[in-house]
Formats: sequence, structure tokens, C-alpha cells
Amino acid sequence: MRIYCAQLNSIIGDLIGNTDKILHAIDAARKKIADLVITPELAITGYPPEDFLMMPHFMQEVERQFSRIVLATSGISLIVGLPRRSEGDGKPLSNSAAIISDGKVLGYQDKALLPTYDVFSERRYFEPATGYSAWKIAGKRVVVTICEDIWHHTELIKRGSYPHDPVEDIIELDPEILINISASPFNVAKVRERVFVCQTVAQTLSCPVILCNQVGGNDSLIFDGHSLYIGENGAVLKVAHGFQEDGVLIDTEEELDPVSLDISIIKNLHDALVLGVRDYFQKSGFKKACIALSGGIDSAVVACIAAEALGQENILGVSMPSRYSSEGSVKDAKDLAKNLGIKIWEISIEKPFSAYLELLGPHFGDGPPDATEENLQARTRGMIMMAISNKFGGVVLATGNKSEMAVGYATLYGDMCGGLGVISDVTKQQVYDLAEWINRDGEVVPLSTITKPPSAELRPDQKDSDSLPDYEVLDNVLKGYVEEHLSPGEIVEKYGYPHDLVEDLIKKIHCNEYKRRQSAPGLRVSPKAFSVGRHFPIVQRWV
Amino acid sequence: MRIYCAQLNSIIGDLIGNTDKILHAIDAARKKIADLVITPELAITGYPPEDFLMMPHFMQEVERQFSRIVLATSGISLIVGLPRRSEGDGKPLSNSAAIISDGKVLGYQDKALLPTYDVFSERRYFEPATGYSAWKIAGKRVVVTICEDIWHHTELIKRGSYPHDPVEDIIELDPEILINISASPFNVAKVRERVFVCQTVAQTLSCPVILCNQVGGNDSLIFDGHSLYIGENGAVLKVAHGFQEDGVLIDTEEELDPVSLDISIIKNLHDALVLGVRDYFQKSGFKKACIALSGGIDSAVVACIAAEALGQENILGVSMPSRYSSEGSVKDAKDLAKNLGIKIWEISIEKPFSAYLELLGPHFGDGPPDATEENLQARTRGMIMMAISNKFGGVVLATGNKSEMAVGYATLYGDMCGGLGVISDVTKQQVYDLAEWINRDGEVVPLSTITKPPSAELRPDQKDSDSLPDYEVLDNVLKGYVEEHLSPGEIVEKYGYPHDLVEDLIKKIHCNEYKRRQSAPGLRVSPKAFSVGRHFPIVQRWV
Repeated sequence: MRIYCAQLNSIIGDLIGNTDKILHAIDAARKKIADLVITPELAITGYPPEDFLMMPHFMQEVERQFSRIVLATSGISLIVGLPRRSEGDGKPLSNSAAIISDGKVLGYQDKALLPTYDVFSERRYFEPATGYSAWKIAGKRVVVTICEDIWHHTELIKRGSYPHDPVEDIIELDPEILINISASPFNVAKVRERVFVCQTVAQTLSCPVILCNQVGGNDSLIFDGHSLYIGENGAVLKVAHGFQEDGVLIDTEEELDPVSLDISIIKNLHDALVLGVRDYFQKSGFKKACIALSGGIDSAVVACIAAEALGQENILGVSMPSRYSSEGSVKDAKDLAKNLGIKIWEISIEKPFSAYLELLGPHFGDGPPDATEENLQARTRGMIMMAISNKFGGVVLATGNKSEMAVGYATLYGDMCGGLGVISDVTKQQVYDLAEWINRDGEVVPLSTITKPPSAELRPDQKDSDSLPDYEVLDNVLKGYVEEHLSPGEIVEKYGYPHDLVEDLIKKIHCNEYKRRQSAPGLRVSPKAFSVGRHFPIVQRWV
Repeated sequence: MRIYCAQLNSIIGDLIGNTDKILHAIDAARKKIADLVITPELAITGYPPEDFLMMPHFMQEVERQFSRIVLATSGISLIVGLPRRSEGDGKPLSNSAAIISDGKVLGYQDKALLPTYDVFSERRYFEPATGYSAWKIAGKRVVVTICEDIWHHTELIKRGSYPHDPVEDIIELDPEILINISASPFNVAKVRERVFVCQTVAQTLSCPVILCNQVGGNDSLIFDGHSLYIGENGAVLKVAHGFQEDGVLIDTEEELDPVSLDISIIKNLHDALVLGVRDYFQKSGFKKACIALSGGIDSAVVACIAAEALGQENILGVSMPSRYSSEGSVKDAKDLAKNLGIKIWEISIEKPFSAYLELLGPHFGDGPPDATEENLQARTRGMIMMAISNKFGGVVLATGNKSEMAVGYATLYGDMCGGLGVISDVTKQQVYDLAEWINRDGEVVPLSTITKPPSAELRPDQKDSDSLPDYEVLDNVLKGYVEEHLSPGEIVEKYGYPHDLVEDLIKKIHCNEYKRRQSAPGLRVSPKAFSVGRHFPIVQRWV
């Protein structure tokens, strides 16, 4: 049996465009003499379509486009993902796979496990499947599953917490091939996990598993592709390209040697961010980005990612020195721009900053400067960036990293402003790793940017370490508290840090929820990102 | 049977404080010789506790506090709401009511219908109940339900879409009293709906229904209280106070005349906003608020609500005229401050605004001013407000209304900035109604503020009507599209507006998602609020 796995990059709500992509995939499959084409989950709408699903006129158009697809399947079979209005009580939709052959809909397989945790909220829209069927396609017994349906079979999704494992039900259907259509978002651990899940299921069912994943960035979520063909013994036989559309022909009769799966965490992280930026711009019709270049490592890494995603000619760097900026920082920003080949403007914030100080002085009295004056500088820079964006139509990229966003070491409406937070889910330590990766073939991020101690330069001789512990400590507490849900006591026990320090950092994480709630939406690359996959009240008294 | 209904105002995560409130309620009930005390849903944690529920050490503390409560019930019965770790597969928690009597836990009733739509996401945490029991309390057969469990019995929650109606199951238990513990958030239609639900259920079961609701503001959600005692014939026999804590003794043997339920939509809306502001401040430990007073109706209404919530002595108004501000506006702002008895500062934005224009002029060239220069004014004001907030510790209240937030007629990081959006879910037409209500005993909002045409005053002779249709038109399109999920064609048909106008407004609603995503969190008072109860992608191509 010849199966064409169409790893598509859908745009949310672009029902006609997404359908055209599916039709092109059918054509491509025909040229390769495939028996069956498979697409990702919800390929017609793109994943996740969110509350568009609640609009009846949206669902009508899904059905219209689905009819176009059915008509295009003469002489071939297709498994395509779509939301489907269902009969009966409960939520009015199913997250479905339509099984189509030669212009006829054979039936639908609905999704049984509807993830409602972290970034997922499928129970908001869908009713789960009640059972599974085997489908006869090109003479083979094929069982179709949707994404999460096969994950509960491993221990990997404890938080999914389902009462029941569909793979156990599928055993008795004795499939010859298991298809899984997915929209499985990237995080740094995910590629390896996805392989493990498919291997485990292949071994349980003693049949090959083919997983067709969505690719592309949709707001915060990045889908990495890496569609898989796993042999019945668990061997990895084919892997589609990561971070780009791909079409893979799988011939189940062909004897293949296992491929070696070389997963570089930092390369994947880098490529995911590039894809996230590129799709955020392309899918919303923007071309140009502006980035405030402080000379520090965060803005440098963001500029490199943006230049790769959008082209160096589409990036404007803006250096905005103040009375507290070091000469080195301005030089580092200029060196970076030169290395990257991007434009850079230098705009001193001294005049508007002084105007604010003069204006507010009479109200503020004679006390020493405090965070107010620091924030005024960061916000003046934010205003200049937004003015440039308004005048020339570029999108401002926010450059805050996850470690500082966690504890509020950033200025709301200042350096936190922008259309997209490129590294807001990347820890400071990962930012250094990214800089090293970017410099793998030569210096792009200036070495002095990497080696100097991090500083916000908002007062004389300021260093991050004046206010924050070592980033290693901060990042460990962050991982323990945010990703692993450990108590302060458990974190103290695990790492041996002082109890006060851990308590203080956790308090800061909660106190700064109100800031993060108003930050630029950020790309999600960790198993637990602030805002998008983590829901906490602003006003609370637990911490 | 004598039942004490404790309408409590919990603070999210304040497990000890919330438990103390429950213990006080038990004491108060004892003094009134009650047989049974009932609390709201999840009274120990406050509703909604969100992802705190996923932290094992949080749940351990819930259990510790629950033990304190059990010990305090000697000689009395109690029904208290709490999250409970449950055995078995599926989500690891239940949203439960513990039924306790004389120091012993008789058992638990879990919630069967777990709302996962609009502002609710209970399926993220909880597994539903599988059945119902009757409990013998003080000689009566009592059935306990939790909030949503009784709503599906009416047609009011179409979007809840449950496969099954618990009230139908309860019929066979033949209850003598039905208790419902709730955390049922306010919206302008909700008080009447809640009465209707309880009446319908009382009539179906031929028994009295007692609903104990949470009261208080928790971030965006406002719980109005209005706990209910409905007779078996559907008559409203008692209603607890709205918008404040209350304890109501209900004697089911007592003959009562029905009370008349006089619901003033605009008074309730006003009182809800006051409570929302008050609790946002009190629960987070803030006292003082700063409000930019433009002389327009939005900031005037926000100032009035804030003064009532926090006390006039805690409000600082700031008038920030520019070269485009009319004399009338500055006077209106001052008159408002005088009427309210609040401080007002006047700070001209001319100097920093000019500094920006000078600084950016060489980069911007000689083109005519556009939205850039308008936004610079709004953002300069935002910066001044934030600087005052930073220096003196007050919270900035954002003054944007729902109509303008819908279509982006507001400046991100400018007038959209602040700690809380007081009227971001209030339409412009409702803002006028609120001003009228506030002026019911005499002029507080200056009449000229009410009668002049709305203007942002960011360019010479600007009026809202230059960019926007009549607010009546905008508000109707908003209601049709956002609340009722109508298609553009259906809105045209319903109201007879031009198709282009409707399409253009809907396009604006989606284009401005990115701005609203970064706005100050807002108080939710409508059945469908932006951000908090409405999930749409920023990047999409449906519209």
C-alpha cells in the first residue's frame, strides 16, 4: 500500500486556502501513484480554530469546502481532518477524520481523547468518540486515530488524565496499519516523545504506525512537522522534514532500513523560533520587523532569529542609548547590525526622558530616583519603537526572555511591548545556547555581547545580578515550580537553595502575573509557557 | 428545618482566611439555632482557583483546612464546597460538596455538569459525578447539587451542551429540599436567569430550592450573590443581598409571602462594577487609584465608580491636556473632580510630545501627521500615568469601553494601559446609562460631558463619528457578532445596516484582537466579554 503523508501548514480560518492545499496534495499523491493521502488533524480549518468553531456560518463553510475535497478524490482514498457537526446530545461538534474513497465518504472517525490541559481546550468544543472502527482501504485493514488518542497508551501525558486508552480498544480490531492524524505542537522535548509514543503503539498493535503532523506557527503554538513512519517492530523508517511543509510517500511493502534520528535540542529550538516568527508575519501579511537593540544578548538573539525568518532586508534595529548606556553596548548593537547586514538607527532617548523628569519633578519631590525613573527610560524606548512601527508598518518584536518575564525583571509598556515575544518562553540559559548555535560558523552575535555580565543599564553600573540570583538558580526554580508543580520545600530539597530565596522567587512569579498578562503574545517552546499554557489568577493569596 | 445560607466572599487561594469565614458562618448559624449551614461552591479555595488545583501542595493544604472545618461542626450539619482528590481514572479531582454532620463526613456529592465554555474551563481540572444521592439531614431528604448541575434543566445554557440532565435523575430521589451551592458569575441578564432556573427546578421536583451563591470580585469575574430561597411552587421567598456578603436564615416550616423581585439592570451593572473594583484592590492589598480624566464620559464614569468603590480620598485624577484639547474638556475634568471631591493634577503633555516629534522628525520625513502622532499623545499620557503609579503606588484604572475596544479605537500602551479595565465590557450606550444613573440625585458627571459629541481630541476638531458609525449601530453589530455568533449576512438582515459597514466592523473586531490581548484585564459584566470569555486567534484568515 502506498500512502502519501501530506504534512501541511494550514492558516487558521483560511478554509479555501487550506482546502486548496489538500487538493494539491491529492494531485501530488496521484502523480506518485499513491493509494491513500493523509492530512493533519483539522486540516481544513487549521489547528486550533478556537471559537470560530462556535459560529454556525463558519461550520457551513467548512462543509462546503469538504464537499470540494470529496469530489476531488476520484480513484484515490483520503483521510482528512475536520470539525464535524454531530447529532445527539452533548457538545455539538466532533474533532473528526473523514475517510473518503473514490468520491465517496466511507465514514468518520471521531477523536476520543480531547486534550483539555496546558494549551489545549478541546472539551470546550467537542464531544468525544465512543468507539473505533477498522476501514478497508486498498485491501488493508486500517484504523484511524487522531493525535492524543494514542498518547494515553504511554505514561507521557499524566495531566491528560483520561479514564480510558483507545489503543487497548484498537487491539481487537487487529489493524494492519495504524494512521494517526495530528496537530502536535512543538516543545523542546516533543520530537523524541512523539517517536516514543508511535513506537510503543506499533509494538502493542504489531503494525506500522504513520503519524501525519501539522507544521507551521499559529500565534503562540509552533507545529514542527516531523511526521513519522514507524515499522511494526518500532523502528523509525521515515521522518518528514521538521519546520517546513513536506510530502512523504510511504510504501508499506518496501523494505527499509531504520533511519537514525539525530535530534539537536538547540537546533530544533532555533528552527522552531524561526518558523514561529516567519508564520506570524506571513500569515498576517506583515513583512517588516523593528527590534530595539540594546547591545545585550536577548535583543541580539531575537534579531538573528528575525533576520533568518524574514530576511535581513526586512529588519530595522534601533539603538536607543540613554545617559546610563555604556559605550560598549552601543558598539555591540552596531557590530551585531553589521554582522547581520541589517539597518540600524541610533536615537538617543535623552530629550524625551529629560522632558518627563522636568514635567514630573514638581509632583515627585526631591526623593532619590527609583524604579519610576528606570521605567520611564524603558517606556520611552517602547514609545519610540511603537511610533516607528506605526509610521512604517513594521511589527515590533519584544525581546524579553522567560527567566526575566517570570520574575518581572522587565518594564510593562516598555521593553515588554510589541507584536510578538520571540523568546518569552526561552530561559536566559537557553538564550546563551542559542547565541552559541547562531555563532557556530563564525561571529554573528558579538563576543562581547556574550561575555559581558547582563545589565538593563537603567541606572549607573546596574547589573542583573544586583536584583536577581544567578540565572542557573532562577531557571531551576522556574522549572521546578512552573513545569513540575513542586512546592517551595520540594525545590529547596531538590537543589539545596536557601528557603527564603526560593520563596521570594515564587512570590515574584505570582506578583508579576499582571505584567505578563499584558505582554506581547509569545512563541511557546517549553512544556509550560506563561500565559498560553498556564492559567493563574492575578489576585490571589496562596503565595 | 432551619438552614443558614452563608453567602461568602472568598479570596482565591486564601485557604486559611476562607476557612475562617466558614467557621464564623458555622458560629453565626449556631446562634440562630440552624440545623444546617450551606456555603458556596469551592468555598475553601474561592472560585475559580485555576491552575493552583494542579499543585499537590495546594491540595494538601485544602485537605488540612477541611479537617479544621469538620472538627467545628459539632451539633450542626454543613454542606461546604471544595475540590477533592478522587480515586480512579480520568482527571484527578472532583468539584465537590462535602456533607458533614456533627463532626462526621457523611459523604461527598461531586458536580456532574462541568462548564467548559465562555469563562469556564472546569474540564481542565475535574472529572464529573456519575450519580446523585439523597442525604438525611435533620430528618429531611436533602439532595445537593453544584451550580451548573441544575441549569441544563432549562434551555438557558445551549452552549453548555451536556449529554444529560441531572435534575431528571434527581426526580426519583424524591427530595424534600434541593440545595444548590454555586459560584455563578454576574452578567446583566444573570440574576433573572438564576431565579428562572431555580423556579423551574422547584416545580419539576415539587420541593423548595435553596441556592447559595458566592459573592465578590475575582479578577475579571464578579459574583453578585443574590442567593435564593424558592418555594416548591416556584415562588421567590427570600433573596440575599446582592454584591455583599450575607447570611440568610431559612426556616422551611415557616409560611412566607413571595417577595417581589425588582431588578434594575443599570443599578446592578453599576453595583457589579463597584464590587469588581473594590475587590480587585482589597484582595490584592492596593488602596489608591489614578485615573486619566479627559473630560469625556468614559473616564468620568470610571472615576465615579472608583470613588464609590475605594473612597474619594483614594482617587487621583490627572488631566493631561495637549495642543488639541478643548478648554471645555479641561473644565469638565475639573468639574467632575470637584463634584466627586477627588484630587486632580493638571500635567500638560506638550513638552514630552514635542520632544518626540523633534526626535523622530528626521526619521519620519515631511509627510502629514497620521495615527503615529495621535498614538504618541495617548502613549505620553499612558507613561505619565504609569510614572505616577510607580512613584506613589496607586493602580492606574483603564477607561476604555467595550464598543471602542471592539474596533480598536484606543491606543495600545496609551489609554489602554493600567491595572484594571473598569468598563472594558460596558458598551458606549451603557456608559451613558451609567452616567444617568450616577446623576440620579444630582449632577456628578458634568452635563456637558454627557451632551457633547464624543471625541478623542488627538487632532484638530476630531470626533468619534469621523471614524466610527453611531454607537447604536456599533453596539448592535457587536451584540450580533460577538454574543449571538451571527454571520454578517444575518446581522444585515436583522438590522438593515449596509453590508459593507457590517463587514468592516467585523474585520476591525478581528484586526484588533492583538491590542485587546495586551489590554488591562477588564471586569466582565456581559454574557460574552472580550479576552476572558472569548478565545480567538490573532493570526487568522477567516475574516
